[in-house]
Formats: sequence, structure tokens, C-alpha cells
Amino acid sequence: MPNPLHQCVADDVRLGANVYLSNFVNLYGCELGDDTRVGAFVEVQRDARIGRRCKISSHSFICSGVTIEDEVFIGHGVVFINDRKPRATNPDGSSKGDTDWLMEQTVVGRRASIGSGAVIMCGVRIGEGALVGAGAVVTRDVPPGAVVVGNPARVHALAAKSTGSVSYGD
Amino acid sequence: MPNPLHQCVADDVRLGANVYLSNFVNLYGCELGDDTRVGAFVEVQRDARIGRRCKISSHSFICSGVTIEDEVFIGHGVVFINDRKPRATNPDGSSKGDTDWLMEQTVVGRRASIGSGAVIMCGVRIGEGALVGAGAVVTRDVPPGAVVVGNPARVHALAAKSTGSVSYGD
Amino acid sequence: MPNPLHQCVADDVRLGANVYLSNFVNLYGCELGDDTRVGAFVEVQRDARIGRRCKISSHSFICSGVTIEDEVFIGHGVVFINDRKPRATNPDGSSKGDTDWLMEQTVVGRRASIGSGAVIMCGVRIGEGALVGAGAVVTRDVPPGAVVVGNPARVHALAAKSTGSVSYGD
Repeated sequence: MPNPLHQCVADDVRLGANVYLSNFVNLYGCELGDDTRVGAFVEVQRDARIGRRCKISSHSFICSGVTIEDEVFIGHGVVFINDRKPRATNPDGSSKGDTDWLMEQTVVGRRASIGSGAVIMCGVRIGEGALVGAGAVVTRDVPPGAVVVGNPARVHALAAKSTGSVSYGD
Repeated sequence: MPNPLHQCVADDVRLGANVYLSNFVNLYGCELGDDTRVGAFVEVQRDARIGRRCKISSHSFICSGVTIEDEVFIGHGVVFINDRKPRATNPDGSSKGDTDWLMEQTVVGRRASIGSGAVIMCGVRIGEGALVGAGAVVTRDVPPGAVVVGNPARVHALAAKSTGSVSYGD
Repeated sequence: MPNPLHQCVADDVRLGANVYLSNFVNLYGCELGDDTRVGAFVEVQRDARIGRRCKISSHSFICSGVTIEDEVFIGHGVVFINDRKPRATNPDGSSKGDTDWLMEQTVVGRRASIGSGAVIMCGVRIGEGALVGAGAVVTRDVPPGAVVVGNPARVHALAAKSTGSVSYGD
């Protein structure tokens, strides 16, 4: 069983019933719904919202501006993004503060699955039941039920034709 | 030196002689052979088997169903997969349990090297002495001694011609 | 606020003024300049040098041989490399020691930004103000101000034409 001594969960995190957290998680200011499971080495940032019965696998990063609906699978090492033009400093060389950049929202629709190692650019909507292939780099919206693969990710199959077995790059 | 206070190693882990574990590792139910080294932020899951004199670099994820033979190099941030059609829940909305999905085995042959940031789809065999380029997404078997690169990974060179210096994407 | 109980910072780390470290960092033998911020699950290895006012985001790996100049942004899950032909062991089967491989240096120029999930092959120079797109696999030098995307990364735009909004794969 995970050891609370190896978990960092800030006081302002809202956890639903029966949430499972692994060792080495770093959570602050976020919300996780009932029966959701979170793997090791996961960070969930302030104001990120994760629904019920989700699985957030190890090594993933869920940033501010991301909403994950119910029953979503997030693979291992998945990275979300909320700043399209990241810079460490302003043009005058001062460190960027909270108001010096534009956060773009991302939504992952109900029952979608994001394959391991995928990178999700900001400002996209991943449709209900969609499947993002492992290692894909998603730069635009994914239609509901679609399967996308590659860098940049392209639609590989639509819902009716999806077999699953061809969904990861070939 | 690493501090055991920053390591999570379950009682059922079988460690060979002279195994080195870095800080922030999460190991359970797995087996690591003699003289193998494991970097920070690595998770090795139940029933994964890692041979002797291997190097498992930081931020990598070795899942159930993976067998890594002797003298294998696993780079940083490498992700293995064991479920081709991951979903958080069953069609009826209940959370998936241990018998609700099909585990596919992966084998990494002796003396192979997996470059950093690579993603390894389940059900593949990476041949002895093969080299998987950094950032590659491997979706099918890799022949012994071959060099593969790209997303999806394609054979870039076979053993006799491999120069190493062209092995990572160009 | 981060808890020092969850940080591993070796005695030989040189920290500038006002450096911020998140939980679950693993730092040894490295140097970080004034006002630099480091996210969770980051490892910085011996002899890596990071400048002032940089941001090193969560889950990133900065290895020996990497120099990051001032005001650089490193996204989440970025992986640097310092060994072009990684192997766990020497041809005689003995574990590789410090003198059994060739370290290649990498430099990230001032004010550059590396997108999340990018992989940076060793021996490259990323020019001042360049932007590496999320999920890119960089295998050669990036000119100053250029935008590169893809696997392998190709120049998508040069400084004067860069709009930012097209910089991540499409």
C-alpha cells in the first residue's frame, strides 16, 4: 500500500470518495472525483479538474486549465500543456508572473483514452470515447470516437471502424 | 548516496546482489538481477523481470508483462505498455479490474539499448543487441541488431551497417 | 510550499539566490543560477549548469554535459541525452564505468524555449531564442530564433516569421 509519507497532497485538494493515490504524487489546488486512481510520479496542478472513475497513470502531468471528464484513461508519461508560447521571462528579462501569459483550456471528453507518452497541446478538445495513440502529439481537436496517431497526430480511424489493434502507429 | 527514506521498495521485490537504486523509486512485486542500476523516478511493476547488469535510467516505467534480459540499457523517460486498448472503465461504467483486460507481453533481448523518450507498444520483441532511437515509438518487432527510429519506428540500419552516429532520427 | 523532506539536494549543489525547488527533486553536483525555478520530479546531474531566471518544468531530466544559459524555458517531461551510443555494458560484458563512453556536450542558448515532451539528442546547440515544439525529437543544431517541430525535428519557421501559434506540429 502507498505510504502517506511519500505523498504531497496540499490542503486545498478536493478528493472524492475512494480515491487511490500512489507513492510520490504532487497534488495542489485540484479536484479528483470518486473512485479515481492516480499513479506514482504524477503532478496535478491548481484548478485542474478530474472526474470520476478515471485512471491517471504514472509519470503524467495534468496542468492548470485541463478538465478531464468521467471514466477517462490517461496513460503513463502523458503531458498536457497550457501555454502555447512558453517563455521563462518577459521581454524585459523579468521572470514571468501569473498574468504574463495566456492560459488555454483543454478538455478530455468522457470515456476517452490517452495513450502513454502522448503530448497534448493546449486549447484542444478530445472528444468523448476518442483514443489517442501512444506517443502521439495532439495539436488539434480530436473528434468523438476517433483514433489519432503520430507526430503531429492524424485521424487513423473513426469510431465505427476502430479496431483498437491498429490504433498505435501502424 | 541515495537515501532509503526516499525509496519505496515493497517487501516482495527480489533484488539481486549489488543492485543500485536511486532516490524516488517505486518498486513492487518485480525482480532485478545482479549489478543492475535503477535511476530516480522509476517505477517497476509487479511481475516485471529485469536481468543482470542492466541500466534502467531515470523517469522510466517498466510495467507488468515486460521481461528485460541481461545487459540491457533503458534510457530516460522510456515507457512500456501492456494494454493495447486501455480504458478506465468497462462498457457498463464499472472500473476495470484485473480480469477486465488482456495483458500482452514484451521482451527486450540481451544487450539491446532503448533510447531516451522511446515508447514501446505491447506485444513486441526487441531483438538482441538492437538499438531503439531516442523518441522512437515502437509498434512492431525489432530484429536483432537493428536500429529503429521515428514515430512509428522504422528500421534505419541493420546490425552490420549500424554506425551509431546516425541512429537517432536523421 | 514544498517540503524539504521531499527533496534530495546533495551537499555539492550550488544554488543561486532565490532558487525555487518543488517537491521530489533529485539534484547532485550541478549549478543553478539566481531566480531559477525547478518543478517536481526533476533530476539534474553532476556538472550540468543552469543559468539565471530559467524555468525547468516538472518531470524533466538535465544530464551531465548540458549547459542551459539564462532565461531558458524547459517544458515538462523534456529529456536531454549525453551518450550517442548507450550500452549497459562493455563488449566483454562488464558494466560500463565513467571512462567507457564519450560524453557529448549540449548547449541551450539564452531565452530559448523547449516544449514539453521534447527529446534533445546530444552534441547539439539550440540557438538563442529558439523554440523547440512540444514532442519534437531534436537531432541537429537549431539556429537562433528558429522554430522546430516533429520527429526528427525540422525547421518550421525562422525568427522573423515565427508566430508561435503554429509552432507545435501543424
